[in-house]
Amino acid sequence: MINVGIIGAGRIGKVHGESIMNYVKGATVKAIADPFITPETEQWAKDMGIAEFYTDYKKILEDQDIQAVLICSSTDTHSAISLEAIAAGKHIFCEKPVDQDVNKILEVKKALAESGVKYQVGFNRRYDHNFKGARAAVAAGKIGELNVLKICSRDPAAPPVSYIKVSGGIFMDMTIHDFDMVRFMSGAEVEEVFAYGAVLVDPEIGEAGDIDTAVISMKLSNGALAVIDNCRRASYGYDQRVEAFGNLGQVIVSNDTESTTVVSDAQGVHAEKPLLFFLERYMRAYADEVSEFIDAVVKDASVSVGIDCGLYPVLIGLAAKKSLASGLPVKVADIAAEYGL
Amino acid sequence: MINVGIIGAGRIGKVHGESIMNYVKGATVKAIADPFITPETEQWAKDMGIAEFYTDYKKILEDQDIQAVLICSSTDTHSAISLEAIAAGKHIFCEKPVDQDVNKILEVKKALAESGVKYQVGFNRRYDHNFKGARAAVAAGKIGELNVLKICSRDPAAPPVSYIKVSGGIFMDMTIHDFDMVRFMSGAEVEEVFAYGAVLVDPEIGEAGDIDTAVISMKLSNGALAVIDNCRRASYGYDQRVEAFGNLGQVIVSNDTESTTVVSDAQGVHAEKPLLFFLERYMRAYADEVSEFIDAVVKDASVSVGIDCGLYPVLIGLAAKKSLASGLPVKVADIAAEYGL
Amino acid sequence: MINVGIIGAGRIGKVHGESIMNYVKGATVKAIADPFITPETEQWAKDMGIAEFYTDYKKILEDQDIQAVLICSSTDTHSAISLEAIAAGKHIFCEKPVDQDVNKILEVKKALAESGVKYQVGFNRRYDHNFKGARAAVAAGKIGELNVLKICSRDPAAPPVSYIKVSGGIFMDMTIHDFDMVRFMSGAEVEEVFAYGAVLVDPEIGEAGDIDTAVISMKLSNGALAVIDNCRRASYGYDQRVEAFGNLGQVIVSNDTESTTVVSDAQGVHAEKPLLFFLERYMRAYADEVSEFIDAVVKDASVSVGIDCGLYPVLIGLAAKKSLASGLPVKVADIAAEYGL
Amino acid sequence: MINVGIIGAGRIGKVHGESIMNYVKGATVKAIADPFITPETEQWAKDMGIAEFYTDYKKILEDQDIQAVLICSSTDTHSAISLEAIAAGKHIFCEKPVDQDVNKILEVKKALAESGVKYQVGFNRRYDHNFKGARAAVAAGKIGELNVLKICSRDPAAPPVSYIKVSGGIFMDMTIHDFDMVRFMSGAEVEEVFAYGAVLVDPEIGEAGDIDTAVISMKLSNGALAVIDNCRRASYGYDQRVEAFGNLGQVIVSNDTESTTVVSDAQGVHAEKPLLFFLERYMRAYADEVSEFIDAVVKDASVSVGIDCGLYPVLIGLAAKKSLASGLPVKVADIAAEYGL
Repeated sequence: MINVGIIGAGRIGKVHGESIMNYVKGATVKAIADPFITPETEQWAKDMGIAEFYTDYKKILEDQDIQAVLICSSTDTHSAISLEAIAAGKHIFCEKPVDQDVNKILEVKKALAESGVKYQVGFNRRYDHNFKGARAAVAAGKIGELNVLKICSRDPAAPPVSYIKVSGGIFMDMTIHDFDMVRFMSGAEVEEVFAYGAVLVDPEIGEAGDIDTAVISMKLSNGALAVIDNCRRASYGYDQRVEAFGNLGQVIVSNDTESTTVVSDAQGVHAEKPLLFFLERYMRAYADEVSEFIDAVVKDASVSVGIDCGLYPVLIGLAAKKSLASGLPVKVADIAAEYGL
Repeated sequence: MINVGIIGAGRIGKVHGESIMNYVKGATVKAIADPFITPETEQWAKDMGIAEFYTDYKKILEDQDIQAVLICSSTDTHSAISLEAIAAGKHIFCEKPVDQDVNKILEVKKALAESGVKYQVGFNRRYDHNFKGARAAVAAGKIGELNVLKICSRDPAAPPVSYIKVSGGIFMDMTIHDFDMVRFMSGAEVEEVFAYGAVLVDPEIGEAGDIDTAVISMKLSNGALAVIDNCRRASYGYDQRVEAFGNLGQVIVSNDTESTTVVSDAQGVHAEKPLLFFLERYMRAYADEVSEFIDAVVKDASVSVGIDCGLYPVLIGLAAKKSLASGLPVKVADIAAEYGL
Repeated sequence: MINVGIIGAGRIGKVHGESIMNYVKGATVKAIADPFITPETEQWAKDMGIAEFYTDYKKILEDQDIQAVLICSSTDTHSAISLEAIAAGKHIFCEKPVDQDVNKILEVKKALAESGVKYQVGFNRRYDHNFKGARAAVAAGKIGELNVLKICSRDPAAPPVSYIKVSGGIFMDMTIHDFDMVRFMSGAEVEEVFAYGAVLVDPEIGEAGDIDTAVISMKLSNGALAVIDNCRRASYGYDQRVEAFGNLGQVIVSNDTESTTVVSDAQGVHAEKPLLFFLERYMRAYADEVSEFIDAVVKDASVSVGIDCGLYPVLIGLAAKKSLASGLPVKVADIAAEYGL
Repeated sequence: MINVGIIGAGRIGKVHGESIMNYVKGATVKAIADPFITPETEQWAKDMGIAEFYTDYKKILEDQDIQAVLICSSTDTHSAISLEAIAAGKHIFCEKPVDQDVNKILEVKKALAESGVKYQVGFNRRYDHNFKGARAAVAAGKIGELNVLKICSRDPAAPPVSYIKVSGGIFMDMTIHDFDMVRFMSGAEVEEVFAYGAVLVDPEIGEAGDIDTAVISMKLSNGALAVIDNCRRASYGYDQRVEAFGNLGQVIVSNDTESTTVVSDAQGVHAEKPLLFFLERYMRAYADEVSEFIDAVVKDASVSVGIDCGLYPVLIGLAAKKSLASGLPVKVADIAAEYGL
């Protein structure tokens, strides 16, 4: 039985806590830490059967009975806590992104190389039943060689501008997931990026120096082309779809809905909207990613979404940012070279 | 906090146990009872945090700290244990069917009338997200007045003939769910039934005196017509769909799939099969029905699937049996009259 | 080059005339006859390049240069004109139904047997691209042995009650097409029929002695079961679908729409309604059936929808009528026996 | 009654000839001209009722009884014959592209300005029932302001390399239709283009200096972003789809199939492939575009797809070519400026 500590009791920390307590057989959450404790959170922890509750996450790192930690704290603390946790010999599941600063990710990568610690990055979409089905079809050769990969990713509504200002920009905050999906679906690396952006949702996002709508095209290392389109707002809900096209065929993955109900009336034929929010769409994916992490720890197996999965999307995101700023295509290798990679 | 006892630790008992322990906030499973205890089951109970394990279910009925019981034992014990549980003052969630003998259901109904006990019958399909969506559309008037209701219900594969021999026949074992769906979707009662049956899956089913394929047409109390088609085998998986047609429109509900993946190749366009098995299709429905039951107990509210929901499908099933045997349509009221109803 | 005469210049006569003039290479319409000639129809004939226009159809039968006739006159004249045309040695395409009186169909059948004349009945749905696709899948063994056949057939709106009064009733007027589809899709004969009917669309239809909504279940000669549901009104358009279920799988055919446009908005996901009217849905089918008839004449090949295809649906319709009236299932063989069949 | 002359009796000339003779009420094809006459074509013309057949198209231009011509000859003759036909005072329907040389299109445009001649360019996809449905939804404001437009356009199989060598390249030959669709669907102009290309279908295409796979992103004058993806080969058929996304919703248009047949079996759920070839997909669109042209001539109304619809896609195509060659984004205005626009 693995004892787990969760660092950060916000929304995603609770999602993972519930997943482990409810679904993951070989693990229990022994402790949770959050500097801003609320009575509701404390009650939640009690209800879940989590015995220990700290304001200081270091208590978790010091606990010799805890073998693994989930880093669910604010983004700017991910890499620093990762380094401490590695030093403490804990296996780590770290929410994405590891950091927005490539150098800090590289520090974590270096520390990991010298340790025996497992490190998984929380790219939950890889565990989504739909995307897994599509990836399985591609990996099984059902479309042959990949020619064109298309990813559509739209949020139901834009976050507050205050959030956007500290988000690192749309490419680092939102598209980062899609960059990971490009790598996951294609099994290849992104070589070059060209980004068009626009402010169509909210002028305040533009005033904050960001964009809210984007079309990003890419050349991949396997010769395929890829394109992502993003928008911060979709009136009909959370829209996340993938099309992978190859010499033998095509695979398309569409959204989930609350039910398959279709109503026909004098106005038309009406189906349900996509599930509105990422927690609904990816609830099962969150459980599955944590379950796989615990399993890797228990069986001393390698994780499939390691530190490099945290690194490359950030490099691609930086290339996209530079492309948007310069109006020119940017090679990811040139970004990597800036960091000695 | 409600303490629950589960009587019967078979497949469905475990499903409900996990639902309560994992999802239902205001309840815990205090004890489980099964005469045929296995080490695997005992381990499962420990893993779930269920403290007490008995071979004799009477221990649960005697426990003053247990407010509610789930009757998940073999069908022939449902009504007898229901009566004992009512006598013990426990609220009851009873797996379907309450009994195949109408008189025994009526005994339970009579005992309930004199008690303050809540009694919910386990017709899980009413809690399926798809069927709920369709029922909500009908109830909201989106199709206007119901004219024709069509239910398709097919199992992936026939059970062993040994099971079929004691099942009470296809109408009581399989169509019983669909008879309940007719009542749920229409909000009306079945007045008359005409059944055609055939043995097309397995001749041994015919030799056992049963059929494996059926088309059952019905007249409903609201003037609508209905038809159910059943088969014990569907090569492509568990097929459960509903179409409700009215003067203003139509609502159609189709199956769930493991993913929305669609592959196009030189041979065609290929989507996934329906989920294969009822546990996959209805996992969330099982959790939701138990959750509603606990909620009704906690809030002293009425249950929506009470003893009459256990009674009427059995009456309809008996009418269907009689129709098949006689080759003539049968009024449900005539069956009811045989039992003084 | 085959010269064709069209008897009856109503809606369907014009449809066939345009098909032959526009699509059918080896034939031309030499003459058209209608007792009630209008200037519009005359103009239409001129525009189409049809040279001769008569009020008396006998002129067509007497024309030695005309090899084939299309009988598109009112239903009550079909069998009589058929007999005359057979006597005149013309190949015949006759709109359905040949007659509502079985004896008159049998007279035509007898006359045909002694002639060398080809006789095709206008069951256009057999030529619908969708139903042909489904039949091809069944015939190719893709669903294995047929177990259950389901046909849904609903008109967008009820015809005037004045029409209904002389229509022969819903089974002879509307369901007759579906009875033909049962034979077409199954490749089997209907052995027994049980019909439920209701008046849900318009009370005047009931006052006229007819019903407007029906569920008709059947036993087929190949052991399969079948069910048709009909309604005289579907708010969302012309609804004609088929499901054929067998031991190896299922084939489903749905409606056509004007376009594949799907709009997603804050209210839901909206697709187009089925094509509203039978002429839109079956335009191509009408051309194809006439084309096949001309082809059979040119190549002296047998027609696939011969006089028996005109006979059997009428027998089934009479069985359905009798079932509805008596409330009991009726064997088609018993109806046939009344006519010495 | 309008008399039409068709210049060029190849595949598309015949398609238009049949459309006019079969569907277009107010017009007839009086003459057809083609330097390379075959007995089959002559027979075809006779069968269609086309009286005159020339090897020299000038005979058509000289015929005072002909009011309109369809230019369906080889691409390199379009602009020259257009000029001659304008001089002869004929209304003109010209197959796309008017020319690959912008200056020659501008000559035609200039000549038109001084004439009273109607000039329609054969961008048939604007008349496709699916794309029309989508455009109607956009124009009706159903998606609000356009934010992102996505066009997928793939041919079933690459043409011979000999054709590709003289085609003007993928952007001028294939994407030209999609550039037109961008303008049609958006109601806006393309301001800037960035193109990625790859040779993934056939290395010989690369050796011929062309590409066979492309992702082209664009900025539009209304602030929206657009992306086209092309491939010369789709194993599953002719794949032409559009997604238009706006602040209020999204419209998606998918392919047509031969039938709606869906087969479910133990392997999965199988629908039909898209119609394989452009003639099948766009048969009705071809009839509708010619019908609209004749209508404009008869009623002296303006055409909706005029000379500018022939000009702008060529400018965009040249921008795309330059972008691919340079690896940089290209402004369409810069291309236009090269031609004094």
